[in-house]
Amino acid sequence: MNETKLLYEVFKQTKYQVSGHGKRDIQVLKNALQTVDGTQESDVYGNGGIIEEFQTKMAEYLGKDKAVFFPSGTMAQQIALRIWCDEKGSKKVAYHPLCHLEIHEEDGLKELHHIQSILLADKDRLIGLDDVVNMDKEVSCVLLELPQREIGGQLPDYETIEKISKYCRDQGIRLHLDGARLFEILPYYEKTAAEVCSLFDSVYISFYKGIGGVAGAILAGDKAFTDESKIWKRRHGGDLISLYPYIVSANYYFDENEKRMSQFYHDALELAVFFNSCESVSTIPLIPVSNMFHVHFQASREEVEPILAELYEETSFGLTSYLKEVTQKTCGFEVNIGNQYATLPKEKLKQVFQLLDEKLRKSLS
Amino acid sequence: MNETKLLYEVFKQTKYQVSGHGKRDIQVLKNALQTVDGTQESDVYGNGGIIEEFQTKMAEYLGKDKAVFFPSGTMAQQIALRIWCDEKGSKKVAYHPLCHLEIHEEDGLKELHHIQSILLADKDRLIGLDDVVNMDKEVSCVLLELPQREIGGQLPDYETIEKISKYCRDQGIRLHLDGARLFEILPYYEKTAAEVCSLFDSVYISFYKGIGGVAGAILAGDKAFTDESKIWKRRHGGDLISLYPYIVSANYYFDENEKRMSQFYHDALELAVFFNSCESVSTIPLIPVSNMFHVHFQASREEVEPILAELYEETSFGLTSYLKEVTQKTCGFEVNIGNQYATLPKEKLKQVFQLLDEKLRKSLS
Repeated sequence: MNETKLLYEVFKQTKYQVSGHGKRDIQVLKNALQTVDGTQESDVYGNGGIIEEFQTKMAEYLGKDKAVFFPSGTMAQQIALRIWCDEKGSKKVAYHPLCHLEIHEEDGLKELHHIQSILLADKDRLIGLDDVVNMDKEVSCVLLELPQREIGGQLPDYETIEKISKYCRDQGIRLHLDGARLFEILPYYEKTAAEVCSLFDSVYISFYKGIGGVAGAILAGDKAFTDESKIWKRRHGGDLISLYPYIVSANYYFDENEKRMSQFYHDALELAVFFNSCESVSTIPLIPVSNMFHVHFQASREEVEPILAELYEETSFGLTSYLKEVTQKTCGFEVNIGNQYATLPKEKLKQVFQLLDEKLRKSLS
Repeated sequence: MNETKLLYEVFKQTKYQVSGHGKRDIQVLKNALQTVDGTQESDVYGNGGIIEEFQTKMAEYLGKDKAVFFPSGTMAQQIALRIWCDEKGSKKVAYHPLCHLEIHEEDGLKELHHIQSILLADKDRLIGLDDVVNMDKEVSCVLLELPQREIGGQLPDYETIEKISKYCRDQGIRLHLDGARLFEILPYYEKTAAEVCSLFDSVYISFYKGIGGVAGAILAGDKAFTDESKIWKRRHGGDLISLYPYIVSANYYFDENEKRMSQFYHDALELAVFFNSCESVSTIPLIPVSNMFHVHFQASREEVEPILAELYEETSFGLTSYLKEVTQKTCGFEVNIGNQYATLPKEKLKQVFQLLDEKLRKSLS
């Protein structure tokens, strides 16, 4: 625990950090607000130009009829699944065992909506067509998370998604996209957002991952679906009198960063090579398919933390602020490439990894 | 419909408006943010100085152990009632027929929490001790809204609240305060917020009514209660990565406007006299007990709208942007005094009401 804190403290002092867009401070909102005239009217309970125009823009981007702005993806996705369950009259949905709804939401889906989750595939692999074909036929909706964040941001072949989509349509099962990181996978698939979304009945996207906004989400689909989602949004307590602080920042950082996703992806490819060149270090996936990946050390957290802390102090480069125990003998962390990577001096970065490799060899041999 | 729109349009053009704090535009947030250093770190999922310090400040102000910041009162209050129902093992709560949860939340309490509402008193009067004493004994929690907004912001005698509080404690029934307008009633009761809140087990307050912030709410109570509320906040999708846009503005406008509640109250007393001096106009309550009241016309919306529109055009004073049908032959609107009232030229205001009185006499006789 002390070492974890130590690593975080040393990390905070580094000049260069490989992940992310920079500090999550109030300046993030200030920068966005500077671009908007103070006399612009607030949205009022889901109405008004500022929310409606952004919803229209996102609906067009996603190739869906309508889009609704939500304060959070947790709220948006529970609601999407609830609507599809009510439509079919069956309170069963299917998703990956490491789905956000299963592990990060205090069981809101079950506690608030009484929806049963059917877990597809295993914790350490992606959902395949077979998993869907062989599941309980009473499932109302399948949720696919692209990329599958908790296993390093892995992606299925595009054809697999197409086949799952076709199967679900044929069977009268709705397909929902957890697109928290949808922007981030488009360069790998070489598809537009609308092309990917055309395979899904409903889509959620987030504005504070690759986009780098303050918070907020969009849920998109056909008009009947989004109209129903607004009723549930009010029930959940998400129909705030004013959501504009999140909308203004979502819009600003969408315009800033959506166009950079290809760069973030290529930066991730490069950085993963650096990690994989080090003793006892590997990335999952080995070759990233988005701006993210996981880094695993074949050594315990207790062994790796002092090595990283020393590295940060010697180089002023920070690779991660934390290490998570994976097994008793291994540990790891997550990388999400944002705007900071492009500002790093590359020659120095190479030296950092050479030094890391030396330290790991010395310490772990 | 056309006349409603006309009234709104004419209202928007007026120079002086008697209600509120002014326009709900983005400047409201900009003003608050200007007082905060951009390098201050964001809150992260309910943690961090910016949220914790404000929660502590509000807990102290309310005289409660702990306070939790929520994006909305809708979310905070459903959760409060759910916690008390779970504690007692009875999914029944009691409140006024015009309670926010009953009429403005798309039945979230019933649809998400499966809680049954027992309606106390009648639509046109306050809850009294007898209503509570005679209710279903299985009720887990009674919710009191102070002031009762939908009937003009009426208040019971303070002794009545004390008696209801004592009765509920004796009976093992929790008492929850819908204090969306708690600040606004303190001058009338001549009590501190902590004194009023000591009569309740849990308290919700809002930051965009009299306080004039962007959005957001606080739910306060003992530690076990607030700890549980954080779990439900995540389930509802309200545990946003960053709530600071609302916290910064809540804190800023709390500091600005909480101290002005006595002035708002006295302004409301004065303005109500003006309204009551006019033909066929009366306020509910006749003598306000907070910064708010309702104005009723003994004439239909169709009759009153053109009179008001003409008045606004002639005087550049706006009294209301809308009229709501009360019965086929009567209509009304709500007044909430904020910072704008103090800026009005008082002599001109008197003349506006003299003119309104003349117009009503002429038109309705």
